[in-house]
Amino acid sequence: MKLTEVVITPIAMKDPPLRNIQGVHQPYALRSILQVHTDEGLTGLGETYGDLAILTALRGVGPRLAGLDPFDLNGLERIIRETLGSAAGLATHGLVGEASDEKTLATVLSAFEVACWDLQGKALGRPVVELLGGKVRDRVPYSGYLFFKPATHTPDPGYPADAWGEAMDAEGIVAQARRMVGSHGFKSLKLKGGVLPPQDEADVILALRDAFPDHPLRLDPNAGWTVASSVAVGKKLEGVLEYLEDPTAGIEGMAEVARQVSMPLATNMCVTAFSHLPPAVRVDAVQVVLSDHHFWGGLRRSRELAAICRTWGIGLSMHSNSHLGISLAAMTHLAGATPELTYDCDTHYPYLVEDVVQAGVLEFIDGAVAVPDGPGLGVELDLDSLGRLAEQYEKCGFDTRDDITPMLAVQPGWDPVTPRW
Amino acid sequence: MKLTEVVITPIAMKDPPLRNIQGVHQPYALRSILQVHTDEGLTGLGETYGDLAILTALRGVGPRLAGLDPFDLNGLERIIRETLGSAAGLATHGLVGEASDEKTLATVLSAFEVACWDLQGKALGRPVVELLGGKVRDRVPYSGYLFFKPATHTPDPGYPADAWGEAMDAEGIVAQARRMVGSHGFKSLKLKGGVLPPQDEADVILALRDAFPDHPLRLDPNAGWTVASSVAVGKKLEGVLEYLEDPTAGIEGMAEVARQVSMPLATNMCVTAFSHLPPAVRVDAVQVVLSDHHFWGGLRRSRELAAICRTWGIGLSMHSNSHLGISLAAMTHLAGATPELTYDCDTHYPYLVEDVVQAGVLEFIDGAVAVPDGPGLGVELDLDSLGRLAEQYEKCGFDTRDDITPMLAVQPGWDPVTPRW
Repeated sequence: MKLTEVVITPIAMKDPPLRNIQGVHQPYALRSILQVHTDEGLTGLGETYGDLAILTALRGVGPRLAGLDPFDLNGLERIIRETLGSAAGLATHGLVGEASDEKTLATVLSAFEVACWDLQGKALGRPVVELLGGKVRDRVPYSGYLFFKPATHTPDPGYPADAWGEAMDAEGIVAQARRMVGSHGFKSLKLKGGVLPPQDEADVILALRDAFPDHPLRLDPNAGWTVASSVAVGKKLEGVLEYLEDPTAGIEGMAEVARQVSMPLATNMCVTAFSHLPPAVRVDAVQVVLSDHHFWGGLRRSRELAAICRTWGIGLSMHSNSHLGISLAAMTHLAGATPELTYDCDTHYPYLVEDVVQAGVLEFIDGAVAVPDGPGLGVELDLDSLGRLAEQYEKCGFDTRDDITPMLAVQPGWDPVTPRW
Repeated sequence: MKLTEVVITPIAMKDPPLRNIQGVHQPYALRSILQVHTDEGLTGLGETYGDLAILTALRGVGPRLAGLDPFDLNGLERIIRETLGSAAGLATHGLVGEASDEKTLATVLSAFEVACWDLQGKALGRPVVELLGGKVRDRVPYSGYLFFKPATHTPDPGYPADAWGEAMDAEGIVAQARRMVGSHGFKSLKLKGGVLPPQDEADVILALRDAFPDHPLRLDPNAGWTVASSVAVGKKLEGVLEYLEDPTAGIEGMAEVARQVSMPLATNMCVTAFSHLPPAVRVDAVQVVLSDHHFWGGLRRSRELAAICRTWGIGLSMHSNSHLGISLAAMTHLAGATPELTYDCDTHYPYLVEDVVQAGVLEFIDGAVAVPDGPGLGVELDLDSLGRLAEQYEKCGFDTRDDITPMLAVQPGWDPVTPRW
């Protein structure tokens, strides 16, 4: 079996005005959808970021893959490494740490690697989870992801207001959580912080604790705080948080906080590539790593990260960017085959109102998604939707994620500097 | 596809009187040969140690695997873990470090795991190397393995003297090396030490350097030396050794030596399980780890070890026990798919005079073995040979490897204590 053609389609999907340390989500989130065709008539699916820099890199690699065996993941990596060459070092969104050549390679690799796994599974008539070593869980638990948000985008994007309404205080977040838990059954909750002053966000967590006494709770201000603020919040929330995620920036800063607070510190910002692990381990900077196959280099590399976490006694969770069903399927297969996963995974999926995969496979029941049992990823493209979202991409008016500009539209003069508190 | 029946056959193969720190090889080396049958009529092959303790553990697991999908490596590990339970902690030979529950599980897992990979490959019509991510090299380079040895076993085992003759000094080892390089084309050489006093072994290395100016050279006294002796030899052989392997015992001892010598220190004794990696990394005890799928838990776990070595900048080599063609095939597929492998692999294979696999696949040319291209491991059992070696096992008079007793027959009163110098 050989790859013949790669079709890469940038799409834009409607996205609510979710707040974070860098501002607010744009009205559309961008993704790249990969269709990797073979000489046997199979098509493997991949999904990754839609930013122009990544899209350009993907488009540079695509034509060079003709003739590759989709089992040859080492060959895939070699071709991508050669293609990117010194043109690596593309910027990725700051919310997942600093850009580097290593991360660019891993990001581009992942998109194609997932499509190759999909092809392998389709060729063998087996779900990807079986190729990754077999199911260790039938259903993958996800965490309900809570966001501060205004009711609508500014300016009005011209599409209907989202269903979630405003949530800019404890009351709003608790209401959002009730709805999230009510509709999806999540058994744990994560609050994206970095929006209100730290002590106010701690109070929101305490309100969630009152409303959900048995739900593990996480808070993630995306490195928006100083070490001192992080320690203060950490002490205030002792015994309340399952983990505190990226309260402050950098391995050294995290290590300093870790020495002073009792809960585990988690990260998807200061440890986002293999080269970050030795320095982080040396100073015990983080006790939980949020894997993300999109920037760790795919499913195989994510399993390697899991082995490292197991070996060093580091907890393993999973990070989410705004994503569609192809990625949710990949995340679910990976988590389904990963015994080292010790925490519920993150997902933005409940905020999605349009997808490129056919409905019916990916459903949240009691906060968990059943590992798809069809061949490969177990999801199929809805070509009409793909076309519609591709058209939306052409019309949306931007080609790169940028949370700062729309924030300045809401609040002129807003200063994106961090640490903010 | 489901496993139906597992047939485990202990065999004994003729083995020359190779010397090491623990004494001398017995006239027969013991191995367990696994045939794992499926409901589709396929048979997967595995090979591991033949010691009674391991054999008993394998036999305990075998019947419990009926119904298992050979792709379900996570399920395999779960069943083995449950079966061994608290009966783990079987002794393994001291030359590969201390016994532990972790290592027993990994050893038993490996034997079946390799057979499952063989089955996966046979079912898909693909060589194992392709299932491990694809070839990164067509031919796997091995190192010529040199041993001090008398001409014959004591007492006479009743089979013809081996073809290698005596080698108990520099002249003998250089002659052995010339023959080894001449017949197999090895491009690097390893001397098993721990037999002569350390300075004498260093002189043997210098004689090899004179005779083979371009061959990377290794010396492995199996932790037979004190830290002081290790440092003294290390300084004497500066610029001569590719690496010095296990000069002294334990992570702390190795770290102390590493701080004082310039060449990398390698190990297959103080880091032989994942739990040894964090303490070894913390003190930079070793710069090269010799993987061995037999006790690291199989091919998948060995790839995880490779990822850890890549991440921490630790070199990766491969350890060998006396083995047959099934293991050589597995080692070659693994190495063929492992870019992290930075050194030629070890092998005892040139000393083998009888095998259980059909001839013609595994050949050393220019010191390297081509990755077999048949389905699975690419080797097939020779059932006549298997029967003959199984009979040899029944007659050989022992069921556990023991290098000390035959050494005492050579040299009554010999003291196996270490460190010896």
